[in-house]
Amino acid sequence: MSQNSFGQLFRFTTWGESHGRALGCVVDGCPPNLEISEAEVQSYLDKRKPGQSKFTTQRKEADAVQILSGVMPQDDGTLLTTGTPISMMIENTDQRSKDYSDIARRYRPGHADFSYDAKYGIRDYRGGGRSSARETAARVAAGAIARKVIPGVSIRGALVQMGPHKVNRDRFDWNSVNQNPFFCPDPVAAEQWAEELNRIRKAGSSVGAVIEVVAEGVPAGWGAPVYSKLDQDIASAFMSINAVKGVEIGNGFEAAEITGEDNADQIRMGNEGPRFLSNKAGGILGGISSGQPVVARFAVKPTSSILTPRQSITADGDEVDVMTKGRHDPCVGIRAVPIGEAMMACVLADHYLRHRGQIGERNI
Amino acid sequence: MSQNSFGQLFRFTTWGESHGRALGCVVDGCPPNLEISEAEVQSYLDKRKPGQSKFTTQRKEADAVQILSGVMPQDDGTLLTTGTPISMMIENTDQRSKDYSDIARRYRPGHADFSYDAKYGIRDYRGGGRSSARETAARVAAGAIARKVIPGVSIRGALVQMGPHKVNRDRFDWNSVNQNPFFCPDPVAAEQWAEELNRIRKAGSSVGAVIEVVAEGVPAGWGAPVYSKLDQDIASAFMSINAVKGVEIGNGFEAAEITGEDNADQIRMGNEGPRFLSNKAGGILGGISSGQPVVARFAVKPTSSILTPRQSITADGDEVDVMTKGRHDPCVGIRAVPIGEAMMACVLADHYLRHRGQIGERNI
Amino acid sequence: MSQNSFGQLFRFTTWGESHGRALGCVVDGCPPNLEISEAEVQSYLDKRKPGQSKFTTQRKEADAVQILSGVMPQDDGTLLTTGTPISMMIENTDQRSKDYSDIARRYRPGHADFSYDAKYGIRDYRGGGRSSARETAARVAAGAIARKVIPGVSIRGALVQMGPHKVNRDRFDWNSVNQNPFFCPDPVAAEQWAEELNRIRKAGSSVGAVIEVVAEGVPAGWGAPVYSKLDQDIASAFMSINAVKGVEIGNGFEAAEITGEDNADQIRMGNEGPRFLSNKAGGILGGISSGQPVVARFAVKPTSSILTPRQSITADGDEVDVMTKGRHDPCVGIRAVPIGEAMMACVLADHYLRHRGQIGERNI
Amino acid sequence: MSQNSFGQLFRFTTWGESHGRALGCVVDGCPPNLEISEAEVQSYLDKRKPGQSKFTTQRKEADAVQILSGVMPQDDGTLLTTGTPISMMIENTDQRSKDYSDIARRYRPGHADFSYDAKYGIRDYRGGGRSSARETAARVAAGAIARKVIPGVSIRGALVQMGPHKVNRDRFDWNSVNQNPFFCPDPVAAEQWAEELNRIRKAGSSVGAVIEVVAEGVPAGWGAPVYSKLDQDIASAFMSINAVKGVEIGNGFEAAEITGEDNADQIRMGNEGPRFLSNKAGGILGGISSGQPVVARFAVKPTSSILTPRQSITADGDEVDVMTKGRHDPCVGIRAVPIGEAMMACVLADHYLRHRGQIGERNI
Repeated sequence: MSQNSFGQLFRFTTWGESHGRALGCVVDGCPPNLEISEAEVQSYLDKRKPGQSKFTTQRKEADAVQILSGVMPQDDGTLLTTGTPISMMIENTDQRSKDYSDIARRYRPGHADFSYDAKYGIRDYRGGGRSSARETAARVAAGAIARKVIPGVSIRGALVQMGPHKVNRDRFDWNSVNQNPFFCPDPVAAEQWAEELNRIRKAGSSVGAVIEVVAEGVPAGWGAPVYSKLDQDIASAFMSINAVKGVEIGNGFEAAEITGEDNADQIRMGNEGPRFLSNKAGGILGGISSGQPVVARFAVKPTSSILTPRQSITADGDEVDVMTKGRHDPCVGIRAVPIGEAMMACVLADHYLRHRGQIGERNI
Repeated sequence: MSQNSFGQLFRFTTWGESHGRALGCVVDGCPPNLEISEAEVQSYLDKRKPGQSKFTTQRKEADAVQILSGVMPQDDGTLLTTGTPISMMIENTDQRSKDYSDIARRYRPGHADFSYDAKYGIRDYRGGGRSSARETAARVAAGAIARKVIPGVSIRGALVQMGPHKVNRDRFDWNSVNQNPFFCPDPVAAEQWAEELNRIRKAGSSVGAVIEVVAEGVPAGWGAPVYSKLDQDIASAFMSINAVKGVEIGNGFEAAEITGEDNADQIRMGNEGPRFLSNKAGGILGGISSGQPVVARFAVKPTSSILTPRQSITADGDEVDVMTKGRHDPCVGIRAVPIGEAMMACVLADHYLRHRGQIGERNI
Repeated sequence: MSQNSFGQLFRFTTWGESHGRALGCVVDGCPPNLEISEAEVQSYLDKRKPGQSKFTTQRKEADAVQILSGVMPQDDGTLLTTGTPISMMIENTDQRSKDYSDIARRYRPGHADFSYDAKYGIRDYRGGGRSSARETAARVAAGAIARKVIPGVSIRGALVQMGPHKVNRDRFDWNSVNQNPFFCPDPVAAEQWAEELNRIRKAGSSVGAVIEVVAEGVPAGWGAPVYSKLDQDIASAFMSINAVKGVEIGNGFEAAEITGEDNADQIRMGNEGPRFLSNKAGGILGGISSGQPVVARFAVKPTSSILTPRQSITADGDEVDVMTKGRHDPCVGIRAVPIGEAMMACVLADHYLRHRGQIGERNI
Repeated sequence: MSQNSFGQLFRFTTWGESHGRALGCVVDGCPPNLEISEAEVQSYLDKRKPGQSKFTTQRKEADAVQILSGVMPQDDGTLLTTGTPISMMIENTDQRSKDYSDIARRYRPGHADFSYDAKYGIRDYRGGGRSSARETAARVAAGAIARKVIPGVSIRGALVQMGPHKVNRDRFDWNSVNQNPFFCPDPVAAEQWAEELNRIRKAGSSVGAVIEVVAEGVPAGWGAPVYSKLDQDIASAFMSINAVKGVEIGNGFEAAEITGEDNADQIRMGNEGPRFLSNKAGGILGGISSGQPVVARFAVKPTSSILTPRQSITADGDEVDVMTKGRHDPCVGIRAVPIGEAMMACVLADHYLRHRGQIGERNI
């Protein structure tokens, strides 16, 4: 029952605060004999890294990962996992703690300041401390390892809504995702968003977003009833990400609006087995993967750090106005895309290993 | 890592199939010296029980619960919990297994038939077996115990959307919830829904729904970063319920659409401490309760058992049309209301106990 | 973190008190498609059942097990597991609660009466309530299922010491174990023990014992560093059994007395791979099975229920003398033999499944 | 289900290999507002550190610990815990990997080389890799934090047997423990052991030992039935330590030899409540602490690294003789004393927090 661990057989534990010495994770349960490298983990961290465009926080962090354990260097320089825990560390470099001194005792509305104090009676207020989204760098590192566990599975994420603006599904193109600073799969929307977000950024405001993550290549049979459902763990994974307020599987809340006739994914026989005629279920039936692409979405609220003063109180009970002058993301949902991918990868790696332990050898 | 358990310190394990001898649960971690009774547990089961109106399945089940362990009868006939596991059992009585013989090898679209077979290679097809919503009776029993653990917390659920029809928030009235067969908090909507659902029922169709659960009286400080967030566990709890496809906390997906200014819950000092001016966050900040009401919703898909034939295949790979002739719910979301309440109660009882173990004595 | 569950992937939860309505367990994680039967589970329960000789308690309990869930009856009447939780129940029949009324508020020395009251402030004193060894019937039932998960593994237990009297290892014969009421592998010792235990029984006294459990057929590779060691989980399993005060793996405490030269299990190549020249390690190296037989022992204290009065106190703090007049085992270690076997089976079934989840497919 | 984590509410995860970059642990679940310091953690590490006398390995490691997260520096320089995970790291400095190149493919008898290869198919052979006792440095660091969680509890360990030589209980003196290089509580025995171990060391041999750990100040009520027994978790904790082959609680295996009369700890009323007349039970009844000192022991085998050649095989199946030329402990049990103390501290801190979560507020 760890407060800071996620997963069962593929399980990672994260640690670190926004302005502490370092942050990192320990990945426990990675199978042996997988080839990994710091460079590959780094490539995923670079997607999440701040300061890559004017649309994300200007904090400068190299986010350089070190792999400290769990691997055996081979003669050719590659690293092979050994089945022992993989510890990864990222040192904090650009910390500017003084930026935060004035909010040490002020509760920023929408942030966890008040609730942390209520719980712990103490709080690292520097940059949000443990509740900072910097923790998600460790998730991305864990996700990079998870991908190696399930090499046949492709996991991709995209920003499908920014504020009230949804992408046009007819223009959905995975190739477009890495060609704009929003991970937007709709090149036309991307241009419109650029203009919009620039306006929001300059106004010191912020806006929410919806991220979609799709996993292809998941075979039928992962997941389990009743409290280890694959979709349940995806929901748990996504809701654990900072600022997430909603999660959907497949058609999600749309399912509430339609009839059983319209919601059914009918099945025919294809050349390679069952062929579903639609994917309203998002690739999961009864908590178990159906072989279709696993499709999930999550809603990220607008970052609460804005220039406009908001009413709040201090730890001493004084009424104050709070505004945020530091470096922040006008749409924190953008950087949530690689995080969502990482969490999906971790859930799937975990369920792959769990499936092996659930079934035994007879059914292989 | 149980497939059939939920919770950490307040933890229940369910067992049983739709058409087996019985079903039940074991509640582990209930504190001692709480007064409980079969009658009180039964009262919650009766809310979920089938056959109470023409709008739910006509299967006749008394759903009579027996408490088999974990209690010490007192001289006055009351039962006190002893801190040991509470085993509760409900015998199945109206099983009609023959209803299901024709679907033994047919995969009903939208049901877990195909994915169960893909995973296990064997399946109790009678009434859906383990994937039947009958399992949720055990959750409701566990939830009744959970409520006793947190007596200061009030937990109420309501159907706030049936198909595309949402309740009018201006007419929202908790007193209305138990005065119609839909747990609808809007008396006007309830009348419209009755007409609508009657039409759907007669057509052999079905429709989805959205359930809202509100917990009042939760003090600030329950929950924990980063992977034991209170909202994360609520999302996990709700997504584990049969047919659920989406979960929201507070304003949920609406948060994606608005700006940071609009999304912030501003704070003033009231007579009894901090007073939030709104509750967009749904009572949870950074995964920790804020003292505001905890508000969460989940979307239930339309039951996949409908009279209209749908294309599917058999376990042998033959293409067939499948329609369901058995007894079913035209809107399974209705009976999900007490289930959602029960899961919320279990999550909160668990987090109450965890909070005690997380903080130690210094902060009390 | 269940207080009443054991195991990870193969996990069982027990419930029930000595004098409640029933007791039982839920086995979660049993793979599908295994053939089981009530008769086979019953056969193991019969080994543990009280009242089988004058050397065990005269309480009469049929200990008749019912399998309530998790199985699909086949046309030929056999039961196949389905991968869903297997709930098993044993009803209590011979309860004689009045026997215990006089000790309701007296703390029997050596029993858990005092510590339970200190913890819970309430206690089912009837027959020891939850701390009664009746709970172990549920373990034996779970163990019967566990054996089906690892059909290639043979698990046998024996009483190798009763009081100060150890068996003669030169006469150790597994065939002898079921030919005397002590599960004694040394027929000569069994006769001596009969005389000795008869004397102890008539004197209203009791005596301790040591049980050895040997598992053959465990392949090399089960277990894992560092906190999932196979021997660690065996130690945990055995120490969880009532009245156990010590656990040994392989040569156990003898290892403390000898030199590295004498303690090493040397290895040669045999026709079928590595061949160890001795088994001081008890089949486990670094927490991982070596392919040799897994050998473990545990020490059971003499039952604390004796006729000779012992000094104690009441719940009210009065000094009293306590003696036990009820039906009890003069050597509770005897009935611990099938319990030790069952726990070993559960640990091994769990580690077999975990091994599958730890390694992934590359290494199979 | 972590392979490399221990504990439930107070839970630590260790990582690192003998000759990797570093090793460390993440302590999850430490309550907030406890004052800790690197210097204090270091003081415990120094007790375990190699090279402190000629009786332990001559490997030179500063074992300098860094606290990387989970603390908030105060104005006066002290560190306060914040309730977030405490990450601690120790860099490896004296690695001499070349010492081990000749054993890369040789299975050292008694070591985990063979079983690791059988499990993982790959192994960091340098210094034993993950199976090296260097991992225990991380446990000692975690134990230092655990002690802060339960400030009223005193935890002390001693070497009570070296090879066949037991201490004289009449001379048992805790003050003596830190006045000799063996943590021996019997000053006379310590002198004899010095001579004996010098002889063993020069002969390139090794010898086993028994460590006793005593915790005073544990209140009645910690622990829980049936699979969260306090003694069960102590057994698990001790058996997880490298080279441990046996565990005892209280009188341990002696309990098997005596009668119920002799084994009972009788109770009288003292001035401050119940007063036990003996402590055969080792402070635990029915898995729950009784308020008496918690007493446990574990047997450590002689280190398998010795100068005398032993028969073994290589990974290729060739028969070879193996001897160890590196730096090793002639009695690895000595350095196990602070490790045993640390594990006891972790178990007790965990059970203290669990007890709070098990009972709820009514019973406080």
